[in-house]
Amino acid sequence: MNRNQLIAQIKAKQSFLCVGLDTDLTKIPTHLLKSDDPVFEFNKRIIDATAQYAVAYKPNIAFYEMLGPKGWESLRKTLDYIPNEIFTIADAKRGDIGNTSGYYAKAFYDTYNFDSITLAPYMGVDSVKPFLKDDKWAIVLGLTSNEGAFDFQQLELKNGKMLFEEVIRKSATWGSSENMMYVVGATRGEMIAKVREIIHEHFLLVPGIGAQGGSLEEVCKYGLINDVGLLVNSSRGIIYAGNNHGFEKQVAKAAKDIQQQMMRILQSRSLV
Amino acid sequence: MNRNQLIAQIKAKQSFLCVGLDTDLTKIPTHLLKSDDPVFEFNKRIIDATAQYAVAYKPNIAFYEMLGPKGWESLRKTLDYIPNEIFTIADAKRGDIGNTSGYYAKAFYDTYNFDSITLAPYMGVDSVKPFLKDDKWAIVLGLTSNEGAFDFQQLELKNGKMLFEEVIRKSATWGSSENMMYVVGATRGEMIAKVREIIHEHFLLVPGIGAQGGSLEEVCKYGLINDVGLLVNSSRGIIYAGNNHGFEKQVAKAAKDIQQQMMRILQSRSLV
Repeated sequence: MNRNQLIAQIKAKQSFLCVGLDTDLTKIPTHLLKSDDPVFEFNKRIIDATAQYAVAYKPNIAFYEMLGPKGWESLRKTLDYIPNEIFTIADAKRGDIGNTSGYYAKAFYDTYNFDSITLAPYMGVDSVKPFLKDDKWAIVLGLTSNEGAFDFQQLELKNGKMLFEEVIRKSATWGSSENMMYVVGATRGEMIAKVREIIHEHFLLVPGIGAQGGSLEEVCKYGLINDVGLLVNSSRGIIYAGNNHGFEKQVAKAAKDIQQQMMRILQSRSLV
Repeated sequence: MNRNQLIAQIKAKQSFLCVGLDTDLTKIPTHLLKSDDPVFEFNKRIIDATAQYAVAYKPNIAFYEMLGPKGWESLRKTLDYIPNEIFTIADAKRGDIGNTSGYYAKAFYDTYNFDSITLAPYMGVDSVKPFLKDDKWAIVLGLTSNEGAFDFQQLELKNGKMLFEEVIRKSATWGSSENMMYVVGATRGEMIAKVREIIHEHFLLVPGIGAQGGSLEEVCKYGLINDVGLLVNSSRGIIYAGNNHGFEKQVAKAAKDIQQQMMRILQSRSLV
């Protein structure tokens, strides 16, 4: 999917919601456990319930990987089921030397048909470039919102910048806002402002709304651009909104609630 | 596997060779392609040919992941086939927030029964701690030997250190030399010396002997400690040493050649 297609979808749905498919067999409604493939069965219902409100789906690959080969089958079926016009993100945080990165690109872009993948930048240029392909996106970790984000990402460099600023500045020269995005945590708005000083046009993938405590208003205040430029993720707050027969309705409502907030923000800024 | 068991194996085999199972269907002997599971069939023969010379096997996970679910089946069979006394490394370079890291640990330690996994440190403490378990090892990227290693790992920090030094210094406080190792590239010996100034006792996993051009003598000069403290990897130089019927003999010879060099070095330093 290219940038124009993504923006068109955002404007049509008046939403920049990404739904995280962190599907956990210990958390899904128990009546689904009887099916042949409970992971796919759950994802299918989540997708049906949220596709009109979401512009992206982001399976967290660890949840599938830990199930062994059958987890990957569930993932493949999930990707086949997601409507073509919705953006897909492999939240895999891969990163390796050039030829190995090429194989990871093959895995996620070709074998599973994802539009994009999240990447860890520690290994530098050859860990990112193999993922820059036509209509495919490298989503590089910039600043995350977890406990450990303070350990290295916010170290001060000799030039006075923080590491994450240099990571974003330098890696942005390897591609463009047509094939790169950045993961930027939502816990502090001023950090998003710092990121926007470096990259004005790139889409930011923002985790941490909901369960991780970020504020949508805060993210939008600092992150929105004319092309919207945000994908804001919610995982547990949506997919586990209900846990009995009929959970789909609660899931749809949780997604719609966020979409409506997004719509109001977009409208108030005349972006739709 | 614990540290004493690993050291005992190294001393018994007079080897600290790790064989990288970067199994690529376009490179394995073509007569194996007829089997039901050519990846496993190849790995099995590599293991049979090298088990007496190698103390560790390191499948590069990208090579399996790109094959879809059946690649993971091949990986599982490979892990089941590796003799119990040989150390196993999932070269996966994972790294994510705490609960997700816990799921990756489950995937590699429980689902596939690896002894260890390589990790990218960018996300900090909660991306590493879930991998510190009894008899299991987190192998953190310190300094790699690829082109992109210069982009961020060698950035100078305000305190005068390079980023990789701070990554090693800080992360080493999260575990011990009984459950953590570091990936340190082999291209320049003085860099290994810098690492040894920070961590005297930890094992180092050194890629880049052979195809990537590192020198075994150089690595040993700076990296060896009383407990040996090195695992030196070779992938393509061993596993693709032959490519016809009888390739196993060339593979065994390539592994033995390195083991013999290692033996001479260990003996010259009275470490065995």
